[in-house]
Amino acid sequence: MSLSNEFLLDSKRRVESVLDRLIPGPEKRPGNLHEAMRYSLMAGGKRLRPALCYAAFEDCGGQGDAADFGAAALEMVHTFSLIHDDLPCMDDDDFRRGMPTCHKKFGEAMAVLAGDALSILAFQILAQAGSAEAVDLLARALGSDGMLGGQVVDIESEGSPPVLEVVEYIHIHKTSALIEASLELGALLAGASSERRTLYREYGRCIGLAFQIVDDILDIEASTETLGKDAGSDQERQKATWPAVVGLEKSKAEAARLVSRAVELCSQMGSRGPVLAELARFIVERGN
Amino acid sequence: MSLSNEFLLDSKRRVESVLDRLIPGPEKRPGNLHEAMRYSLMAGGKRLRPALCYAAFEDCGGQGDAADFGAAALEMVHTFSLIHDDLPCMDDDDFRRGMPTCHKKFGEAMAVLAGDALSILAFQILAQAGSAEAVDLLARALGSDGMLGGQVVDIESEGSPPVLEVVEYIHIHKTSALIEASLELGALLAGASSERRTLYREYGRCIGLAFQIVDDILDIEASTETLGKDAGSDQERQKATWPAVVGLEKSKAEAARLVSRAVELCSQMGSRGPVLAELARFIVERGN
Repeated sequence: MSLSNEFLLDSKRRVESVLDRLIPGPEKRPGNLHEAMRYSLMAGGKRLRPALCYAAFEDCGGQGDAADFGAAALEMVHTFSLIHDDLPCMDDDDFRRGMPTCHKKFGEAMAVLAGDALSILAFQILAQAGSAEAVDLLARALGSDGMLGGQVVDIESEGSPPVLEVVEYIHIHKTSALIEASLELGALLAGASSERRTLYREYGRCIGLAFQIVDDILDIEASTETLGKDAGSDQERQKATWPAVVGLEKSKAEAARLVSRAVELCSQMGSRGPVLAELARFIVERGN
Repeated sequence: MSLSNEFLLDSKRRVESVLDRLIPGPEKRPGNLHEAMRYSLMAGGKRLRPALCYAAFEDCGGQGDAADFGAAALEMVHTFSLIHDDLPCMDDDDFRRGMPTCHKKFGEAMAVLAGDALSILAFQILAQAGSAEAVDLLARALGSDGMLGGQVVDIESEGSPPVLEVVEYIHIHKTSALIEASLELGALLAGASSERRTLYREYGRCIGLAFQIVDDILDIEASTETLGKDAGSDQERQKATWPAVVGLEKSKAEAARLVSRAVELCSQMGSRGPVLAELARFIVERGN
């Protein structure tokens, strides 16, 4: 097993055990809400954002369990965004990771509230870790100048001919912002200087953007079976994607360029540099 | 003009000017999201929660502008809860304060995202004020063991014959939790001890519960014109209300008892005790 695969699996196990501890069970009122939160949070996934947080934390010499709070908060807000994104009034998706989406399983009202509750719990956990700076960092990555901004522009651009500047805005905000924040949060929780944090943020920007471009490419190329969602759905909806603007070949070249740059940055890192370099490569290769 | 009216007006002016500074204008991308956030946030209202925050802050001898951050955050999360509560999958309300609700004006997707963004911005602002403890306090009041818990149980109880224990759970969580938090946040931001904060929390519990019971009573008694929303709508939906369980007269007596207790607690307070006592009385009298 490769270094990064092992790291991903370890991080996944670790954050899932933290999440299991942090979300109340269905026996605690309101049981249905806790069940809906757990259902979406425990539906699997690679747990990439927690892994990036752990990697940056360790790379900066962080000790103790502070990164567990960061990793759990990141997975909670990521899940919050997926739940709300899947709603009928948004992407209207019935399946996610091969399972019914939260609103298909628990109804729309519960899905709205489960997303809300996960987002709020994420901030609570970071606050309990004692770091107002961590709360600020995550909130910036999520808010109207971060992920939510990207979602709004994504929705608004649907149906219009895509323009590169807009696609780039969407990808950077909708996807990169939280990936950058995952790395910076790890570094911050390890006590790294703001100068040092810039390195991880830049690496995060590269892999976040590459990740989304590869996602666009996969949507065109992959089969429904591999992705666990309707392939080609972006095209059908005239979504603002990278290939729609510059074509498939140039999209692949741009993703490769971004990954190279990310790998280059890893040479300035510490003990986790090799893992982060492998994770960067893993992103472009996941489609093969 | 009475003491409490003057205080409410001053607080309203103060928090509205803070909010105006904190929410980007529609000229900043994503313009529609900022417009939707502003639309609901600036739609008026008494700004009761900010006023309670300012009052507790001053009563505890707080100095400087820390309470402005608390007050703004409180109004943001209150508005977030109203926007999501009004959604078609929730209460499905077309009007709020005599104006079209956020989703009627901007569409459902934008209303979901505007609510999300307001909640996130509230935490960001408290974090920027430098207080992780304040973030924790607000998150607890909002999450699955706070306001959202109350909303879930409220939705689930609809259509079943109401039971007092459940109605009390709903009212305490859905309404009181944020009112208690408003007062405690003011005290916390002023640097009050946790012992001292208990006094404001208890006062908040009394007026919060009284506020919701009076709301239930008004829903039955008031005309549509006075309330700016459909009167009698709770009854139509078999909502879990206080009068539905114990009747109108006993509900009025309970509201009066809670207000008396709140006024009694004000005698242990400082310079803002008289204003808080008047605010408590104002709550039961607003229907007349």
